[in-house]
Amino acid sequence: MFEIRTDLAVEEKESYPGNGGEIAGVSLREWRKASSSIKLTEVVIQDAAGAKAMGKPEGTYITMEARKLGYQDEDYHKEVAQELACQLKRMVRDLKKTHALPASGPLHVLAVGLGNSSVTPDALGPSVLGNLRVNRNLRTARGLAEEEEETVLSGIIPGVLAQTGMETAEIVSGILHETSPDLIVAVDALAARSIRRLGTTIQLTNTGIQPGSGVGNHRHSLTYRSLGIPVLAIGVPTVVGAAAIVHDTISSMIGTLWSHMETKGMGDYLDQLEPDDQYQLICELLEPEFGSLYVTPPDIDQTVKRLSFTISEGIHGAFFGEPEEKEGTGA
Amino acid sequence: MFEIRTDLAVEEKESYPGNGGEIAGVSLREWRKASSSIKLTEVVIQDAAGAKAMGKPEGTYITMEARKLGYQDEDYHKEVAQELACQLKRMVRDLKKTHALPASGPLHVLAVGLGNSSVTPDALGPSVLGNLRVNRNLRTARGLAEEEEETVLSGIIPGVLAQTGMETAEIVSGILHETSPDLIVAVDALAARSIRRLGTTIQLTNTGIQPGSGVGNHRHSLTYRSLGIPVLAIGVPTVVGAAAIVHDTISSMIGTLWSHMETKGMGDYLDQLEPDDQYQLICELLEPEFGSLYVTPPDIDQTVKRLSFTISEGIHGAFFGEPEEKEGTGA
Amino acid sequence: MFEIRTDLAVEEKESYPGNGGEIAGVSLREWRKASSSIKLTEVVIQDAAGAKAMGKPEGTYITMEARKLGYQDEDYHKEVAQELACQLKRMVRDLKKTHALPASGPLHVLAVGLGNSSVTPDALGPSVLGNLRVNRNLRTARGLAEEEEETVLSGIIPGVLAQTGMETAEIVSGILHETSPDLIVAVDALAARSIRRLGTTIQLTNTGIQPGSGVGNHRHSLTYRSLGIPVLAIGVPTVVGAAAIVHDTISSMIGTLWSHMETKGMGDYLDQLEPDDQYQLICELLEPEFGSLYVTPPDIDQTVKRLSFTISEGIHGAFFGEPEEKEGTGA
Amino acid sequence: MFEIRTDLAVEEKESYPGNGGEIAGVSLREWRKASSSIKLTEVVIQDAAGAKAMGKPEGTYITMEARKLGYQDEDYHKEVAQELACQLKRMVRDLKKTHALPASGPLHVLAVGLGNSSVTPDALGPSVLGNLRVNRNLRTARGLAEEEEETVLSGIIPGVLAQTGMETAEIVSGILHETSPDLIVAVDALAARSIRRLGTTIQLTNTGIQPGSGVGNHRHSLTYRSLGIPVLAIGVPTVVGAAAIVHDTISSMIGTLWSHMETKGMGDYLDQLEPDDQYQLICELLEPEFGSLYVTPPDIDQTVKRLSFTISEGIHGAFFGEPEEKEGTGA
Repeated sequence: MFEIRTDLAVEEKESYPGNGGEIAGVSLREWRKASSSIKLTEVVIQDAAGAKAMGKPEGTYITMEARKLGYQDEDYHKEVAQELACQLKRMVRDLKKTHALPASGPLHVLAVGLGNSSVTPDALGPSVLGNLRVNRNLRTARGLAEEEEETVLSGIIPGVLAQTGMETAEIVSGILHETSPDLIVAVDALAARSIRRLGTTIQLTNTGIQPGSGVGNHRHSLTYRSLGIPVLAIGVPTVVGAAAIVHDTISSMIGTLWSHMETKGMGDYLDQLEPDDQYQLICELLEPEFGSLYVTPPDIDQTVKRLSFTISEGIHGAFFGEPEEKEGTGA
Repeated sequence: MFEIRTDLAVEEKESYPGNGGEIAGVSLREWRKASSSIKLTEVVIQDAAGAKAMGKPEGTYITMEARKLGYQDEDYHKEVAQELACQLKRMVRDLKKTHALPASGPLHVLAVGLGNSSVTPDALGPSVLGNLRVNRNLRTARGLAEEEEETVLSGIIPGVLAQTGMETAEIVSGILHETSPDLIVAVDALAARSIRRLGTTIQLTNTGIQPGSGVGNHRHSLTYRSLGIPVLAIGVPTVVGAAAIVHDTISSMIGTLWSHMETKGMGDYLDQLEPDDQYQLICELLEPEFGSLYVTPPDIDQTVKRLSFTISEGIHGAFFGEPEEKEGTGA
Repeated sequence: MFEIRTDLAVEEKESYPGNGGEIAGVSLREWRKASSSIKLTEVVIQDAAGAKAMGKPEGTYITMEARKLGYQDEDYHKEVAQELACQLKRMVRDLKKTHALPASGPLHVLAVGLGNSSVTPDALGPSVLGNLRVNRNLRTARGLAEEEEETVLSGIIPGVLAQTGMETAEIVSGILHETSPDLIVAVDALAARSIRRLGTTIQLTNTGIQPGSGVGNHRHSLTYRSLGIPVLAIGVPTVVGAAAIVHDTISSMIGTLWSHMETKGMGDYLDQLEPDDQYQLICELLEPEFGSLYVTPPDIDQTVKRLSFTISEGIHGAFFGEPEEKEGTGA
Repeated sequence: MFEIRTDLAVEEKESYPGNGGEIAGVSLREWRKASSSIKLTEVVIQDAAGAKAMGKPEGTYITMEARKLGYQDEDYHKEVAQELACQLKRMVRDLKKTHALPASGPLHVLAVGLGNSSVTPDALGPSVLGNLRVNRNLRTARGLAEEEEETVLSGIIPGVLAQTGMETAEIVSGILHETSPDLIVAVDALAARSIRRLGTTIQLTNTGIQPGSGVGNHRHSLTYRSLGIPVLAIGVPTVVGAAAIVHDTISSMIGTLWSHMETKGMGDYLDQLEPDDQYQLICELLEPEFGSLYVTPPDIDQTVKRLSFTISEGIHGAFFGEPEEKEGTGA
């Protein structure tokens, strides 16, 4: 069976009946910086019930939405990079509070660029890594001064299963075993449900990478549970699953047909069809290959190039940036 | 309004009622080499009536289909490259017969790699050009021996409108003006209607490149009429328009609903809906952005890499290969 | 015979006896912005005598030197980009004064990214073009408003002779013929004499591109004389010719040997050897292949990436930037 | 102090006085296949004395030399690929005999593509990996049938220290820890002494990768000793160290000067200078930056593309190819 999925918690939340209605175990908060056109949304999945309802693990999902991210505007990208840095720092601070990270001393961060650098909409992770300024080599060379607070950054582009024959999780586990970082920051291209999200939304989460997520459909997880260190994940939707588009259009079509018919007194039949038969009907019509096909816009190369710069600047800002005086949390 | 299109003449032909039925002004011939699993189809659009019915210009469209092109098999790709060389030579011979090309003397061929090298499914043309062994520079250096029959090959990757600000046709025209080739061989990634065509079909045509064709949606034509020299075009479908997929699925769904309802005596309503209202309904449901979105499989990078090698070998075979003793035409 | 050359006028000037001594027909001016660590040098070759002495055509050569260009420092690169924009604007203004460019109306600029994108130290031009925001396509689409002063920008990556079989000059000429720009801005990777220049110097000249210049060794010129429109050229040295390095080291060695020997009364012999025999001796020792070999540092990929961003921002600043209030000329 | 080095054992051997003279602990064997223009050389460093003399570890170094590798000739590259496969199989057989590899059962091979994919002459390893057909993912999916003899292949492009902040040896060690391969096949671009070796020689060795070897100058080793499994290394020289070229030219110059002078009775002085002062003099003249600079030809992109195909076919031939009936060893 094909899969209709979104990697964005905010879309999963929206898809609930009543759009914005309460889900037990899931909290939602939206805010906007006074000076900014960036809309922030924080979805917190608080317990197992919430996780089950959302089909995503417990944790915090922060979404930065900005229609203008679709354009070339250096100042605007700088603003988004600063907001990303600010939210990353907040997550790191929370991890220190819960002792998932050491409270003091230099932090060793391993950045992981997930995805396939040869496939444009899956190249976001490798592209961000190409912009990062790692410094672990320099630090090792001159010795780690334990009292320093400076972050130690290393990075890896693990490739994809079809290129390496190895799960990304295997490669990352091996590197953890050898280099013992404190924290992983994983960057990945995501699949969304809605076309308008493509290249205009950044999601940051403390739940890591789940099986089945991302454009490349990771089979294994990169999470605190699986790796033993916290994993922050940054993602941008660059594709919509082909099945999602067909499904949505057909759903909306059935709705339209239905109301047409109701006005003509034929709604009875389609009531019977709804909702399980309807789903059944749609699935029969979709070819099995649909599961792996994706939909992407023709200017995706420019989107990936621009956003990979914004995200790498956000990571630099979070770990090598100024002191934290102006971090707002929207509170 | 979005566009539901295919760049393959063979798919346009198939879409006619009765699938394989006669169209005035269009001839169809299918054959298979005895020793081979390559299926060849030749669609000839013979006159204006055929051109109007097919929505494509008059000329010859040869399709090589081979499911195994989807796999890594060096010998098989060699067989396809030889068949492509053979068909290219046949088209060149026909152009000589009709005096569109000089009957003797060295032929100067300009290869044009259309598409965007930064967008994986649109990178076929640039990728083929990267494999070609041009020799015009060597020929110029040692002087053209007019009696030689050897082909002179030059090549250009003109980029796409959004990168250059110039129409591909402007760039190619300019190069013609300066270098006076006899023949253009253009290579482009195509849009198909059917997912199963992706990466498994090669189309060769003597009609050149049409406005609106290709993954990159060329706005101007590259044709004998527009450029003054013959243009052979080689293409492989690497995407399906998102609108095409949705349209096809919905069409099939309406068919299904219809028969459901007919059995229940409700067909009357949907009869009214058919066919113009139906089309109207579908169009309303599709977002306007759909026109430019495309659907492509996740392993498209491997497909483009493999086929660009097959096609460049086919071009080498046609112009630098062995004498023509074993060219079959299927006749 | 191998070629010992530099594409930098400032190095040619320095190589004269007395380093900084007067050359008839060549003027030199050096300055430094008060607030900045960028050193500017302007060499003007004023007449045929100067051109012969320098082995470069008459015109203005501005050099921006900044050791820190070798480092990743966003603010610093912004400063250099602004200086480059300022000098580009000055050259455009001068071209308007001499009526080589129309005094008013929108200016149509064609950017040309010279070099081979597959060879890292030769990829500067293509890399800059990849960052440029062309707009000719948008302008054409909405019609040119003649009274507007906005620049119309188009761009081309013509490839190199071995890839296309065509001289870059042929391709550019053809494009001029079709699109009629007013001005060419060509970007190219250069060969320097001194290793310390690699990646730390930007040269801007109004003399265009000369035969034999650049990493790729262009065979034909792109100049006002050859093309009929002004050509501004921006270049950064990314390689040193292998022959240059060997020659310099040996020259210095002969000097050392000489003084050793003079102190021992053996200078007579080496005096005889000097200077023509000396040169002869060096040439005999260098293998003929040396002419085409180049020397480049291992981190050249980072240098090209950084500087291509600086230069593209400089071009944007010159043609789409703020009004010209703060342009200093060093006067 | 700069480093004058070669990664080719055959060049190290040649550099000995009397060129081809005996070195204790080092054996040399040369042969040529009857039907072929490939020259094979096997240098075996047999003991600690040989290792010290050669500056390379004990083991077998096989060199395949073929001037025609510099050209585009598909059949010829196929011949070299077959010879490489043959020699790889021989080394695997020897490893089985000495129980460094299990004598039966499926072999799990990890291919490692060393070097920097963004720097053309260092991109050989990543380029070969891009051509390899890994199958470990397929094998894992359908379960390993223990009795099968088929090779299990996985592959990694670990990146370079400046990109990852991690030593390649750390990344590879981590992957070994997770995936437990039996054998590593590492591919790397090498530095040679002689320009004519560039792109025309393939070295295969069972000694792994040494600190300081390769274009990228690995700091840590990948060897049986350091990793616990055998490491076969395949390399092609793509650069010559700039220091090597200068050193060689000056050495030859001093020789020339000397004989000039001896004929004139001035040899006495230069006798004093020889050999230690001479070396001292040369080193003083070379700038310290020279150590990291390299010399490479302008068509290195084509060389790397061609040879990466030849080598990947050689690896496929060794591990997935026909049974071993026609392997000759030159004996």
